[in-house]
Amino acid sequence: MTTKIVIIYATDYGNTKKMAESVMAGAQSVVDTQVVIKQAEEVTAEDWISSQGVIVGSPVHMGSPDWRIKKMIDTVCSGLWMKDKLIGRVGGVFATGGGFGSAGGGCELVMLSLLANFAELGFIIVPLPKNTPGYPAGGLHWGPYARSGGPNMEPVGVSSESLEASFHHGANIARLAGQLKGNTVFANPR
Amino acid sequence: MTTKIVIIYATDYGNTKKMAESVMAGAQSVVDTQVVIKQAEEVTAEDWISSQGVIVGSPVHMGSPDWRIKKMIDTVCSGLWMKDKLIGRVGGVFATGGGFGSAGGGCELVMLSLLANFAELGFIIVPLPKNTPGYPAGGLHWGPYARSGGPNMEPVGVSSESLEASFHHGANIARLAGQLKGNTVFANPR
Amino acid sequence: MTTKIVIIYATDYGNTKKMAESVMAGAQSVVDTQVVIKQAEEVTAEDWISSQGVIVGSPVHMGSPDWRIKKMIDTVCSGLWMKDKLIGRVGGVFATGGGFGSAGGGCELVMLSLLANFAELGFIIVPLPKNTPGYPAGGLHWGPYARSGGPNMEPVGVSSESLEASFHHGANIARLAGQLKGNTVFANPR
Amino acid sequence: MTTKIVIIYATDYGNTKKMAESVMAGAQSVVDTQVVIKQAEEVTAEDWISSQGVIVGSPVHMGSPDWRIKKMIDTVCSGLWMKDKLIGRVGGVFATGGGFGSAGGGCELVMLSLLANFAELGFIIVPLPKNTPGYPAGGLHWGPYARSGGPNMEPVGVSSESLEASFHHGANIARLAGQLKGNTVFANPR
Repeated sequence: MTTKIVIIYATDYGNTKKMAESVMAGAQSVVDTQVVIKQAEEVTAEDWISSQGVIVGSPVHMGSPDWRIKKMIDTVCSGLWMKDKLIGRVGGVFATGGGFGSAGGGCELVMLSLLANFAELGFIIVPLPKNTPGYPAGGLHWGPYARSGGPNMEPVGVSSESLEASFHHGANIARLAGQLKGNTVFANPR
Repeated sequence: MTTKIVIIYATDYGNTKKMAESVMAGAQSVVDTQVVIKQAEEVTAEDWISSQGVIVGSPVHMGSPDWRIKKMIDTVCSGLWMKDKLIGRVGGVFATGGGFGSAGGGCELVMLSLLANFAELGFIIVPLPKNTPGYPAGGLHWGPYARSGGPNMEPVGVSSESLEASFHHGANIARLAGQLKGNTVFANPR
Repeated sequence: MTTKIVIIYATDYGNTKKMAESVMAGAQSVVDTQVVIKQAEEVTAEDWISSQGVIVGSPVHMGSPDWRIKKMIDTVCSGLWMKDKLIGRVGGVFATGGGFGSAGGGCELVMLSLLANFAELGFIIVPLPKNTPGYPAGGLHWGPYARSGGPNMEPVGVSSESLEASFHHGANIARLAGQLKGNTVFANPR
Repeated sequence: MTTKIVIIYATDYGNTKKMAESVMAGAQSVVDTQVVIKQAEEVTAEDWISSQGVIVGSPVHMGSPDWRIKKMIDTVCSGLWMKDKLIGRVGGVFATGGGFGSAGGGCELVMLSLLANFAELGFIIVPLPKNTPGYPAGGLHWGPYARSGGPNMEPVGVSSESLEASFHHGANIARLAGQLKGNTVFANPR
């Protein structure tokens, strides 16, 4: 039986879109996986309900996720949380940002904010291990990161290492979602 | 000379609005303070530029701030950050939420996300001290919090203690903004 | 084959110990699970290496985890991280605290700090779903929480709801660790 | 009247010590400022009580602060928090780390954990503005950061930019502490 993965992103200049596409390619590399990729504005509750795994990526804006991602979370996910609809699914995150300051530029809190949504929904969370290909130049333990700006804030695009880490992140999440399909992790609800 | 404070909020059922109004009353209790209160959608760059202090409050939604607050941050604050327009101002935050789980319900990460915007903008950040009136039932060290839901998620409104802590938070921020007006904290920019 | 789970905690007045014991009882309720429980000071690298699942609990001190937990992380986990020894295991967290302020008292950042260690180590992270028994009075989406202080900071012990949520958290983590034993989630390391 | 600043750090290979010394030099550059610098193990309650400003720096270990810093917080600061001894002081943070992954390596959560202690104590928090000299290669909005490891985790020391940002951070905090000396920001305690 096929495992369905949805990848959700917002993008300003196409960098987060590129990351999302590499996450998609990674998920598709896992056998029996069907992948849907959508911009945040297009996402419906059914996209979440019909998926075993969800991966969300956002640009870093002022140290927190893009408002379009947040609007999707507030308007689509809140109701699913209320009804305990998605407990036991598998999730992960990624981010892209100018990175001014050479210290991540706020990408950690961005990823934690996205992960908070997954935790609220009862998703099992997949981190990015240090030995993932691409990690040394494109990784944080919470997920892949692409620094799309240089030391003077000039656009530099997305590195091949960030795309490589994203590919493996997508594959890892698809693999776990497939392994857990049909399993009951969270038994005995109220 | 008058100190100008802007209070910015989003609200779903009026609870965060009530908190914002108590923050406003506190700020107004400080002599020579002029207070403007606005919903996030109405806020302009000029509101930020013309103020010595800014206070932002949000409902908790899925563990992060309301998307309307985030839209204001992305569309109004990003450009001001780029131009280093607001460095040395004074800021603080507050939050309201259902609080299901009796562990804050995610309000801490909400406040940190709001504070990230202030830190990016170069605002001096005002916490909520433990000895603030109202703190025992309405406080977190990052700012006042109102739990607006009971143990079964039923609406319970905002407690007088949360409003009291908010009043003092508003007064503290207005007081510091007044004391620092005209001072130069951050010297020698690049 | 037996699944081994290690539960690690620090405790000041016995509250976190009680939570840890309830987590243990939950893990033990899952068939073919062997559980070891240890205070942070007693933990060795071998405890981590020999386990499929690890659960760490801490008191909240000044908004971050107890220093004894942190010493264990720095001295035991850092070396295991360096060698990529634990990638693909299953982890979760819990916390206990006075909770002064009625907004979680800093337990969210405590849990995130503990989870950062798990993410660095490449652990798959188990959240606490909202429909877990005990959640309404003893839960945060990141893990169970026990508020051990009343409105005047007086000790009130640990509620049965917090213990109940902890029991199920332990069971959930043991169940997932058992299901994933022998599986390869993170393929193709560098 | 002299403003007293205490700088507190832990260090493994001397990198955080170098950052601390640059913070110290910056604080000393502000007129009428007396600076004390101490390793975490040597810090006493009196060091905190006698200071108008405190700056804490830590290595990044597994995504959270060094355990020696945390021990100081738990054993020295907790009691001062209980008695509301330090409300209205001025604080800031900095961090150093290997930075493997090129996304900050967890320095953001480290700084937030250190800031949580300051918020609990009622300190006014000083961020690091983007236009600070050294920021492009040595900054995060929460404070200066030195990446002391290269792409293969090899030691590379601390950059001049990170030291420059630290110098200005120290000066900013000393300046604000001096400006606020004798002022009452937090009036009307319970």
